[in-house]
Amino acid sequence: MPIFTPLTDRLGIQHPILSAPMDVIAGARLTAAVSAAGGFGILGGGYGDRAWLEQETAKLADVSDPFGIGFITWSLAKQPQLLDIALEAGPRAIMLSFGDPKPFAPRIKASGTLLICQVQDEAMARQALDAGADILIAQGTEAGGHGASRTIIDIVPAIVDLAAGRVPVAAAGGIGDGRGLAAMMMLGASGVLLGTRFYASVECDGAEEAKQRICAASSGNSVRGIIFDLSRNNVWPAPFTGRCLINDHARRWMGREVELMQNIKAVAAEYAAAKAAGNFDIAAVIAGEAVGLIRDIPPAGEIVDRIVTEAEQILGGRRNSVAA
Amino acid sequence: MPIFTPLTDRLGIQHPILSAPMDVIAGARLTAAVSAAGGFGILGGGYGDRAWLEQETAKLADVSDPFGIGFITWSLAKQPQLLDIALEAGPRAIMLSFGDPKPFAPRIKASGTLLICQVQDEAMARQALDAGADILIAQGTEAGGHGASRTIIDIVPAIVDLAAGRVPVAAAGGIGDGRGLAAMMMLGASGVLLGTRFYASVECDGAEEAKQRICAASSGNSVRGIIFDLSRNNVWPAPFTGRCLINDHARRWMGREVELMQNIKAVAAEYAAAKAAGNFDIAAVIAGEAVGLIRDIPPAGEIVDRIVTEAEQILGGRRNSVAA
Repeated sequence: MPIFTPLTDRLGIQHPILSAPMDVIAGARLTAAVSAAGGFGILGGGYGDRAWLEQETAKLADVSDPFGIGFITWSLAKQPQLLDIALEAGPRAIMLSFGDPKPFAPRIKASGTLLICQVQDEAMARQALDAGADILIAQGTEAGGHGASRTIIDIVPAIVDLAAGRVPVAAAGGIGDGRGLAAMMMLGASGVLLGTRFYASVECDGAEEAKQRICAASSGNSVRGIIFDLSRNNVWPAPFTGRCLINDHARRWMGREVELMQNIKAVAAEYAAAKAAGNFDIAAVIAGEAVGLIRDIPPAGEIVDRIVTEAEQILGGRRNSVAA
Repeated sequence: MPIFTPLTDRLGIQHPILSAPMDVIAGARLTAAVSAAGGFGILGGGYGDRAWLEQETAKLADVSDPFGIGFITWSLAKQPQLLDIALEAGPRAIMLSFGDPKPFAPRIKASGTLLICQVQDEAMARQALDAGADILIAQGTEAGGHGASRTIIDIVPAIVDLAAGRVPVAAAGGIGDGRGLAAMMMLGASGVLLGTRFYASVECDGAEEAKQRICAASSGNSVRGIIFDLSRNNVWPAPFTGRCLINDHARRWMGREVELMQNIKAVAAEYAAAKAAGNFDIAAVIAGEAVGLIRDIPPAGEIVDRIVTEAEQILGGRRNSVAA
């Protein structure tokens, strides 16, 4: 009982579920697993580690299911040649987030590859449409990792109305189950992009300890801010902040960002050491508000199946409560 | 084609749409209009103005449709006798928000009146259920006026799971159209409570200028914080902050709350004068993230009709995109 939408149609996929290009933890294994299950896996191009990108795209050479590759736009601008490596891997789509897609759009589109742009407000959506985006992702503040301030119930209808049917819109942020997919479809989205839910999957290249912490976290245990960006000396351009689980380090510095900056050398050293040691009391587990819905670490394909099955049941079940 | 839910069943109403008890602007006119349209109007008990409450409940004496009366719980605790005035008016339900409902629950329930409790996290939901709440409202940070930090896509499934079918859960925050109602139903809610959308209605006792500003505001033009609470010398107990439209006063003080407190006498005087004069460049228009969906000031009954009609179309339309 597939859920057909303009998004599944455009990408040529079975289920309207995309996995987020989470930096280096969304590697070829996760990408292939999501795509094999009928979703759309997106490889994380992240900050542009060329060796990693070559290694992971090589692993995707034999994947026949459609997949995507994602980049942080402002980071790609520093190493535009990485786009060539990505395009050579034959993705169905390139996803660009956090920056102006215009400089890269012509090359992507000339290659016959679809352009997915993630946006956080209307101005970015207009910029993406002007650049020729084929698909928009409307990202809410609930999302793990980098994002902005608008909540998903606000931003999704706003971007759907702005797109006015010209391109499909998928929703991202805080979605972890079939209820979320069904709800986003009601708001006019034709699919969802999930990060945190796929982080806690077998095929994700994240640390086991981080996955366990996502499973243990309750709803409301994440926070958006710049503490972890400050601590790793990688503050993003405005308006982008990062959401991660609240750990000892976050608790220590929340509301004391100025003091953190005044002690940046010591904090950065402590943070780098903790990250190297896998100490997630200090190092951030980058995760979104969907954590409350996540309790296990199944194969990614099972996640796709569960979400689709639940959404189909809910969407189908509504027939009974709307009297004809 | 009514949408039947456990909420409509419990309240004995036709449509799963509740109007928020917005302080003194949700008077008898708005309450009666929403209830007459088949929704559930809730009179705003607000901070406990006895004369106002007596005057407005008197106007409701001839209303035969079920309606509710709402109180700010921590404020009601200072004048518990106001509950008697409310109960004498014969409401179908009393709604308590922002504080422990336990001291008031026995009197409410002994009178045969339903108890609606608005909650912002799981601990409050457990407290409300322990007190005997018949209906929970899960309020997201998107809501206008006072609320907390969790977003609606996070808090609604969390409270629905916690209630586990024992009581109906309605969703509040950022909802302004039929898409929002349909989306919340997908998350497991059996109805919605709307404030801002009914603020911009004919029968709302708010200032015309405030209603116009809501219509003019774009999505993303509201902000949650304590600037207006500080400015009017009425800071609420944690974790409650207030959301209002971003105006000159908010822009001036956002991120400078400490400085505002250091100048509180002058700011409070300026704020009080502006409020008295209806100068909404300084006085707050208390509104939520639904502002982007609001463009007109229709009768409240028309708002109910529109939302229901749109939600029914969307919920019904889904049949076609889920292949059997």
